[in-house]
Amino acid sequence: MKTISFSGTNKPCILETASSVGKKEGEGNLAPYYDNIFTDSRLSEKSWEKAESKLLKTNLTTLLNKAGEKAENIDLVFCGDLLNQCISSNFGLVDFHIPFFGLYGACSTFVEGMILAAMAVHGGYAKKAVAITSSHFCSSERQYRFPLEYGGQRTPTAQWTVTGSGAALIGTGGKIEITHATVGKIVDYGITDANNMGAAMAPAAIESIKQHFEDRNLSPDYFDYVVTGDLGHIGMQVAYDQLKKYGIDLKDRYIDCGDKIFDKEAQDVHAGGSGCGCCASVFSSWLYHLLKEKKCKRILLAATGALMSPTSSFQGESIPGIAHCVAIERSEN
Amino acid sequence: MKTISFSGTNKPCILETASSVGKKEGEGNLAPYYDNIFTDSRLSEKSWEKAESKLLKTNLTTLLNKAGEKAENIDLVFCGDLLNQCISSNFGLVDFHIPFFGLYGACSTFVEGMILAAMAVHGGYAKKAVAITSSHFCSSERQYRFPLEYGGQRTPTAQWTVTGSGAALIGTGGKIEITHATVGKIVDYGITDANNMGAAMAPAAIESIKQHFEDRNLSPDYFDYVVTGDLGHIGMQVAYDQLKKYGIDLKDRYIDCGDKIFDKEAQDVHAGGSGCGCCASVFSSWLYHLLKEKKCKRILLAATGALMSPTSSFQGESIPGIAHCVAIERSEN
Repeated sequence: MKTISFSGTNKPCILETASSVGKKEGEGNLAPYYDNIFTDSRLSEKSWEKAESKLLKTNLTTLLNKAGEKAENIDLVFCGDLLNQCISSNFGLVDFHIPFFGLYGACSTFVEGMILAAMAVHGGYAKKAVAITSSHFCSSERQYRFPLEYGGQRTPTAQWTVTGSGAALIGTGGKIEITHATVGKIVDYGITDANNMGAAMAPAAIESIKQHFEDRNLSPDYFDYVVTGDLGHIGMQVAYDQLKKYGIDLKDRYIDCGDKIFDKEAQDVHAGGSGCGCCASVFSSWLYHLLKEKKCKRILLAATGALMSPTSSFQGESIPGIAHCVAIERSEN
Repeated sequence: MKTISFSGTNKPCILETASSVGKKEGEGNLAPYYDNIFTDSRLSEKSWEKAESKLLKTNLTTLLNKAGEKAENIDLVFCGDLLNQCISSNFGLVDFHIPFFGLYGACSTFVEGMILAAMAVHGGYAKKAVAITSSHFCSSERQYRFPLEYGGQRTPTAQWTVTGSGAALIGTGGKIEITHATVGKIVDYGITDANNMGAAMAPAAIESIKQHFEDRNLSPDYFDYVVTGDLGHIGMQVAYDQLKKYGIDLKDRYIDCGDKIFDKEAQDVHAGGSGCGCCASVFSSWLYHLLKEKKCKRILLAATGALMSPTSSFQGESIPGIAHCVAIERSEN
């Protein structure tokens, strides 16, 4: 599959975004750009899973309110999260009655949803579609690592799952267009350290970004920013160096959402942020703001996902990665 | 969202299918129609999860061989399963290097994948796309219920997760067309019994089938068969009765894959089969055979999914359901 071009009629556009995050994210680098910051990690719910569902639900409500849309006018919603059987999505969406495609792409899910929503709008299957994802530090720690009460020590390469949800309303007639998409392939370099996800996902990001540049025959300075999802400080260095070797020297154009979301000095998150809500909330807040306010014109968003589970790691399997790319460009007029 | 129509150019067709199942399924009602029957539930692997991945991998290889296709000619694969973080799909697909959209729709995933593959082909984003899913009795029992060694008693309403994988190659120029699709909404009637999934999923099936008939203004005898995914003996009776009340009397046209796959008398599976591999393997073997051999002309396939997890059930949540429908029709010529 080569990079998909959304040209001609029904050009898919991002009409609105919404972002809702937790306390730690609200104290990070992008604090001024979020729609909702919840200082209570539980969001008044009885469990972390219910809290995450509520975060996603609140964020979708915020998106609809900002866009002045009712749920019944949304034709399709593409949604996923990190929890087993995607229960944050399932319970978060139940009250909206929107036709629903459930996705699992680990931390790449937000861009996976954007690509499918763009296809649905461009192909004429939906007038308006939503891509939305969530993650929650506490529900993820419990599911993937240790109960919080255990107080486990984190390794320097570990990333911090973002408590956040990002959502994008995709339709036609806007100025911020989704022009191209590169659907990721599963890439497995045999990395088995579940505490070094950035390194596991970097090869997939490198492959998809390289493919995108090659398919469109772009020079390295075409995009204002090339943004990876959540490689973190370690994985982003791997991606930057390898892309440079391939002739794609991104210089100061390269951003990683996991690197950007937290304050490296003041917030102790080790290798950076991660999770389905990481690139979703960074794009839906700050990056969309940059595009909308004409502070930049072209962004390549490459969300990365580690396609493992605790069970596969216990069984000695490696960590396959995937990266989906969308090119998002503000039209001239 | 109303029912989607795939009319005009690029009509999406099912060009080939493949089905691979376990021993018990191979002793069931549809034994003559499967491509592969594995009498070793482990498929020579060291864990149930690896066995399920291998089942899916083998089935995709079989599909490509039957169709005379190479993996590099497949533009997109839509794939999902029941395991946490969909590891059967992730590890099963890693060697194929096909651009990949990971899905989670519980037992509705096969039709979810077919709809998205049909959109991708009809919209011109893929020339050839594959929808594939798997489930495995042993990996599901361990994850959702009890370790097999525990020897837990099953309730009469419990369903038996099918060990199976079904796959469909979707492209253009064939005779068996995907003409319409109704994307499901999440429906929650407050059912909390995780051992009675059929009842939990029936309302979603009823709603989606009703919507499909209404949107297309069809009479109850339009389809040769209306097929639900895996409501089992109990859920299918609920669906049949309620649809009749809505004026859609399906009489002897109604089939449920979970009811059909096992021999009720000879095989002790209680309420019938279930799982991502249930409607996938039933469609990809017997139903596709009926269409291809001109034994029937029109099928409505309504795959149902229960959108819960053990965690959500432990936390007292209800079981939301979803049902996606595709109309599959053999063209006249």
